[in-house]
Amino acid sequence: MKKFEEKTISTEKIFSGKIVELQVDEVTLPDGKTSKREIVKHPGAVAVIPVTEDNKLLLVEQYRKPLEKSLVEIPAGKLEPGEDPDASVVRELEEETGYTTEDMTLLTSFYTSPGFADELVHIYLTKSLIPLEEKVAGDEDEFVEILEVTPEEADKMVAEQRIHDAKTIYALLYLKSQGWK
Amino acid sequence: MKKFEEKTISTEKIFSGKIVELQVDEVTLPDGKTSKREIVKHPGAVAVIPVTEDNKLLLVEQYRKPLEKSLVEIPAGKLEPGEDPDASVVRELEEETGYTTEDMTLLTSFYTSPGFADELVHIYLTKSLIPLEEKVAGDEDEFVEILEVTPEEADKMVAEQRIHDAKTIYALLYLKSQGWK
Repeated sequence: MKKFEEKTISTEKIFSGKIVELQVDEVTLPDGKTSKREIVKHPGAVAVIPVTEDNKLLLVEQYRKPLEKSLVEIPAGKLEPGEDPDASVVRELEEETGYTTEDMTLLTSFYTSPGFADELVHIYLTKSLIPLEEKVAGDEDEFVEILEVTPEEADKMVAEQRIHDAKTIYALLYLKSQGWK
Repeated sequence: MKKFEEKTISTEKIFSGKIVELQVDEVTLPDGKTSKREIVKHPGAVAVIPVTEDNKLLLVEQYRKPLEKSLVEIPAGKLEPGEDPDASVVRELEEETGYTTEDMTLLTSFYTSPGFADELVHIYLTKSLIPLEEKVAGDEDEFVEILEVTPEEADKMVAEQRIHDAKTIYALLYLKSQGWK
């Protein structure tokens, strides 16, 4: 859909980093006036809702520098260039939790911040976790701790704002809508 | 929580725009090594799930330049500097839909992309919409169209990826968990 399309007059590339790029587009608005749009480009991400045999949710705690605090989240990671999300999500599960799976279902996908960024997150579910015999190395600058939580423990973490991000809040609502308890 | 804290060695300010700022922090990791973190600063946002008297969901369609397409979303907008979210969300509802309310409930809040941005979105619900007698002017570079949808129409928009962002996907799951039909 191209309703209210904003045509690009010019693009100014500001920054190209390890993860994000930033550009400012000058655009023509539907009324003919011009404006500027600040746009963050991101490779996209995958996330997985991993439920254990005894009905607990696997979560990872990690430091989030933009917030200057750690959050407890469902396992996730950014897509490598050209990587298929279905493969990426198994790799992230293995790296972050020490489990793998042969049964991964795509639940939904969503843009996290369509006003200023193009990041698209694909959310998967697995209830068939297989422990890896050998640990898989993740990114060398990532430090995560694994947690297994009940619904009550997850609710407590939401109240304490230890769980406080879109994909994990979505995951909890999804599991509850499916009768998780 | 400061688990796995990453101490800032230096901050390089890259960009300061109308909406976002970008900086690159050099950090000390928990193992003593150093790394860089690309951080987008955003003022935060509010969004509202507005349900009409006849049980339809009010949505707005607008062009999202980062995606080069229009999306259908729950009404939302960024916080002005120092603005209280409770006031901001009523202002956004008025500007984008032509309704106001005296009954707005905060449902949840979440960071949209904690890996690279500090944007926090506050999600509200209202089921008491009052038509405004006079239209309230919104941002002059915003063009939106209002839609009223049933659950079936919303599902179709998700399948067509016209609805495709975190806060609106959350909103639909929330309403369904509350028996919306």
